[in-house]
Amino acid sequence: MKSSSLLVSLVLGATLVGSASLALARENMSPTDEAIVTRQAGYKFMAWNMGKIKGNLAGNYNKEQVAAAANTINAIANSGMGALYPAGSDKAGAGVHTHVKPELFKQPEKVKELAIGLSKATNELARAAASGDAGAVKVAFGKTGEACKSCHDKFREKE
Amino acid sequence: MKSSSLLVSLVLGATLVGSASLALARENMSPTDEAIVTRQAGYKFMAWNMGKIKGNLAGNYNKEQVAAAANTINAIANSGMGALYPAGSDKAGAGVHTHVKPELFKQPEKVKELAIGLSKATNELARAAASGDAGAVKVAFGKTGEACKSCHDKFREKE
Repeated sequence: MKSSSLLVSLVLGATLVGSASLALARENMSPTDEAIVTRQAGYKFMAWNMGKIKGNLAGNYNKEQVAAAANTINAIANSGMGALYPAGSDKAGAGVHTHVKPELFKQPEKVKELAIGLSKATNELARAAASGDAGAVKVAFGKTGEACKSCHDKFREKE
Repeated sequence: MKSSSLLVSLVLGATLVGSASLALARENMSPTDEAIVTRQAGYKFMAWNMGKIKGNLAGNYNKEQVAAAANTINAIANSGMGALYPAGSDKAGAGVHTHVKPELFKQPEKVKELAIGLSKATNELARAAASGDAGAVKVAFGKTGEACKSCHDKFREKE
């Protein structure tokens, strides 16, 4: 994984936002709403896979399930989600809600730092999962969870 | 990617479904509704990444963006989404909608065939994207789109 340039993409973002949506799409959704629901989909799917790893660590450990989950988390974290935070996407339209704090859009350096932290953690999680070492997965899983939380604490409104 | 056993997971599914949801979650959502919104999140995020590859093939080709997108599509396709089709999840609760046809739950062999087809296509897409050969990506992208469509045609209700 060439993480450095992917991180630039992750943080600075590109301009292509979900033109081929299949699910969750509504007709005439604004570009910013489309970005909001797409980034939420990514986090949702990461969370499902985090839940699977948590379950494996707590019960019968299935190496292949953990590796598949870790690969998915890592790929999503490195997919360039910065593009899903276009200007104006701190405000959601009717039927859409975002928890993002407006501060995120004013602190690019902090966002970059947090994104790099997440990418490092998920890269390590994927490596550990591929090795099948449950102890290493547990450590990397904890660091990934901390990376999620550090961004939520800074830039996500409480429920 | 050890696709054979992952495919078993993909098709037959496991039992852990999204316990750590961060976005799109609602309190007291039923397990089947949770599965529905989680699988929709996965497809949504795949679609966003398909859209990015389409944009790259139509315009300035950025190898790293395409590779990241293809890795994400491939990881999601191999993440064991069969677990997100528990019995009863052809019916959605209030505020949730699913397009799935009830036939999907009665034709496991056909579902398995389609899932294997998708996995083969996305594996090839990820390989082609890693090589940076835009022509090979175009071919694999087309096959991935066909794999998506073949399942939609069979098991997804029209809008």
